[in-house]
Amino acid sequence: MKDASSRFRELRERLTHFHSLNTAAGLLEWDMEVNMPRAASEARALQFSAVTKAAHEVIVAEETGHLVEELAPAAAAAPADDAMAAAWRWTEREYRRRRNQPVSFVEELAAHTARAQEVWVEARSRKDYSLFRPELEKMVELKRRQAGFVGDFADPYDAWLEEFEPGMTTSSIEKLFAGLKPGLVDLVSRVSERAGSVRLPELKGSFPVDRQRVFGEEVARAMGFDFERGRLDVSAHPFSATIARDDVRLTTRYREDLPLSSLFGIMHEAGHGLYEQNVSDELTHTPLCHGSTMAVHESQSRLWENLVGRGRGFWKRFAPRFHEMFPAAAGLDAEALYRAANKVERSHIRVEADELTYSLHVMLRFDLERALVSGKVKAGDLPDAWAAKSKEYLGIVPPDAAAGVLQDVHWSAGLLGYFPTYAVGNMISVQLFEAAPKTEDYSVLLGWLRENVHRHGRKFHAEELVRRATGKPISPEPYLRYLKTKFGELYGL
Amino acid sequence: MKDASSRFRELRERLTHFHSLNTAAGLLEWDMEVNMPRAASEARALQFSAVTKAAHEVIVAEETGHLVEELAPAAAAAPADDAMAAAWRWTEREYRRRRNQPVSFVEELAAHTARAQEVWVEARSRKDYSLFRPELEKMVELKRRQAGFVGDFADPYDAWLEEFEPGMTTSSIEKLFAGLKPGLVDLVSRVSERAGSVRLPELKGSFPVDRQRVFGEEVARAMGFDFERGRLDVSAHPFSATIARDDVRLTTRYREDLPLSSLFGIMHEAGHGLYEQNVSDELTHTPLCHGSTMAVHESQSRLWENLVGRGRGFWKRFAPRFHEMFPAAAGLDAEALYRAANKVERSHIRVEADELTYSLHVMLRFDLERALVSGKVKAGDLPDAWAAKSKEYLGIVPPDAAAGVLQDVHWSAGLLGYFPTYAVGNMISVQLFEAAPKTEDYSVLLGWLRENVHRHGRKFHAEELVRRATGKPISPEPYLRYLKTKFGELYGL
Repeated sequence: MKDASSRFRELRERLTHFHSLNTAAGLLEWDMEVNMPRAASEARALQFSAVTKAAHEVIVAEETGHLVEELAPAAAAAPADDAMAAAWRWTEREYRRRRNQPVSFVEELAAHTARAQEVWVEARSRKDYSLFRPELEKMVELKRRQAGFVGDFADPYDAWLEEFEPGMTTSSIEKLFAGLKPGLVDLVSRVSERAGSVRLPELKGSFPVDRQRVFGEEVARAMGFDFERGRLDVSAHPFSATIARDDVRLTTRYREDLPLSSLFGIMHEAGHGLYEQNVSDELTHTPLCHGSTMAVHESQSRLWENLVGRGRGFWKRFAPRFHEMFPAAAGLDAEALYRAANKVERSHIRVEADELTYSLHVMLRFDLERALVSGKVKAGDLPDAWAAKSKEYLGIVPPDAAAGVLQDVHWSAGLLGYFPTYAVGNMISVQLFEAAPKTEDYSVLLGWLRENVHRHGRKFHAEELVRRATGKPISPEPYLRYLKTKFGELYGL
Repeated sequence: MKDASSRFRELRERLTHFHSLNTAAGLLEWDMEVNMPRAASEARALQFSAVTKAAHEVIVAEETGHLVEELAPAAAAAPADDAMAAAWRWTEREYRRRRNQPVSFVEELAAHTARAQEVWVEARSRKDYSLFRPELEKMVELKRRQAGFVGDFADPYDAWLEEFEPGMTTSSIEKLFAGLKPGLVDLVSRVSERAGSVRLPELKGSFPVDRQRVFGEEVARAMGFDFERGRLDVSAHPFSATIARDDVRLTTRYREDLPLSSLFGIMHEAGHGLYEQNVSDELTHTPLCHGSTMAVHESQSRLWENLVGRGRGFWKRFAPRFHEMFPAAAGLDAEALYRAANKVERSHIRVEADELTYSLHVMLRFDLERALVSGKVKAGDLPDAWAAKSKEYLGIVPPDAAAGVLQDVHWSAGLLGYFPTYAVGNMISVQLFEAAPKTEDYSVLLGWLRENVHRHGRKFHAEELVRRATGKPISPEPYLRYLKTKFGELYGL
């Protein structure tokens, strides 16, 4: 029998092969959103499916199972921050999750997902939930069955969570949300009362798109995003894509009347991008060479978007350049720009929500996903349950299904268990920001994040990473305290 | 045993799987030239190798061999233009060529190619052939060995040709070149003598790059290139890439002082692109959904670049718009622009050669490749042999190796047997152009090409395709006659 270190090398080669195929599939997706003529969708679907199938086969191969089995003792004996031990942990999970789903089930789920997404688009455009209801019912049932395949979980929701937030459980999320919800609902309610009398300034006028692009790039560069190892392009929906550690691509969209929308979009995606660009060399060309869990990733995008970009210091620094680029903003000084960037408004659409109300949208979806998986709410009753939760958390009720239960792509895409990571990411963003040096020199901030978060790639899950970086467990209190201070001051509470 | 039609369906599915992976690899290459940050080269090489390996495995799988064997009788009995029979012929060749090369040999050749390309770049920049000589020696030896693996060929050069120009043999190419060379050498010599006294007009001044782009797109659109199913981008070296039948991508490069360089580059690549965009539906999503052989493909790019773009009719049509876009060209009327586009100059670099001398560069390389494979010329004697041939064909001797034996990428890339297809493509371009309706309405010309060439994809090899389209075999005479007429008139012979 070969020694562990040579078997670890074999594992690493296998992971590099998987990663190369997987990131090639990532390029197919990026290109589809940025460059591809629409006429080529059918060919692109075939290409994507062929490359992801090849990647999948590398993981589910019997040899992967042998490596996982043989290397278990060595991985368990290694220090937690050992790159090979981390690779083993990643492989064990992927192998277990993928290998135990029967091929026929995987195909059924893929076919249903394709169908559900088509129906969802149609249902949303018609604002008719009844069209989508049977698809959602079937999706929940398939995802429940999937949970049974992928591991031995007390609650199917734990199996869903493991896909996006390994290391966390339903009950750990419930605990975090229980610590956030009452205080946040109360704060939103009080700010909303004040919002009638406290009018924050607004940016009005024309903000030429090519100047928005230049300004956005300048800000991303100031954050430390390396354009020698990345790009910024345009797509219908902003996203970031890691084609390689040294090829990280951001996208945004521009509207001439909404300069802050593209700016914060760029800062958000650049936050994700910085994470991916700064993983350490020892992890490159492997699946560990990505940001850790979804919550940690979101902590990075939110940190730059909200704690930096929607902060006073940012506007003090960038107001002169903003005025130079956009004469329409001449009437707003740095303080006014800061205030304009922080307007609170209770609204229906999560992706357009302000910093204060955002996490309530997420908790609403978490509650409903939990109710769906436990059977407490049937798919047919979802619009009513949504309305009730929205009233309870945000004080408003959506006028139609497109502004409510049909607004997100996640459920049609089978991404159940994804939502809570957004709110946990918000909590982590504040904890990290408060542990980092207080400075408006972003290279110092980035240096701290690189050392404490980025370089580790996927070595640690959220809890372990936050403990190492801050000395404390993940907690909602710093986040709530931060929101109370910031919005209390803005709205004179 | 299953019936042939159900086995043909299995073959088609297998080919679609291969084609999807192969065109995904094509996107990796396109993106590398157009978008990728240079820092990501190492990751991109891993991605490209992983995806092409997956594609290769689809072809060399035992099941492919079974399909080829079982379907041989049905394919032989089908009409020549049957899509499935053509798919069988393609698969038989690919399976035979790939399957019979030992994995260790394929790896050795790939490793040597990577090394040879690096050394070639260095040698060319230093103008020092002695650096590259051992790499070329080894490349010729490896390619000779490869010829032994891939089939039962009388001459190793036939095996090399089959990769790029299946259906043609060394002797058929020799016959074509024998019919072209004496007349062409004589014509070039007589035109060169006259070129001292007959001065054709020249375009001088500034031609803004963004206007070159607009004009080039207008011309490509006038040719019939469908921008709803394709793109035009910028890269260091112009090329065209077929990501899908409905996603055909052209690239060019711009120099402010050379508007004809980007224009003819775009017309050349759009000629390739039109071919790929107009393959019939029955072949989409398979490897048959590409232009036929390299020679036929080159006939399409050359037809649009030279017979259309360097023709009098083109300049009559486009001179007004050209003047509108480029004030610097105001002094040259349509006839002068036509003449400026057709200046002849004996020069050393093939890719910069004019229409008249181009094929002589190609024949020189064919002669030297033949001499290398037969052993008549050793790698060490190549610069002398090059100088002698260059003197004989073009009347000039390169001043250094960078302008001679080191100028092309082909030999370092292992593309021996590729060159002759360029000259055969020139011959075919004239034969097809003369068989097509005489018109300046490009939609009529494109319609004829679509019907007689494009729609067939890879169903037929060059000889069969030309016979079907023109009723005649491939021949050098129309090409030579066309050159004599055109350049005789331009240079007053």
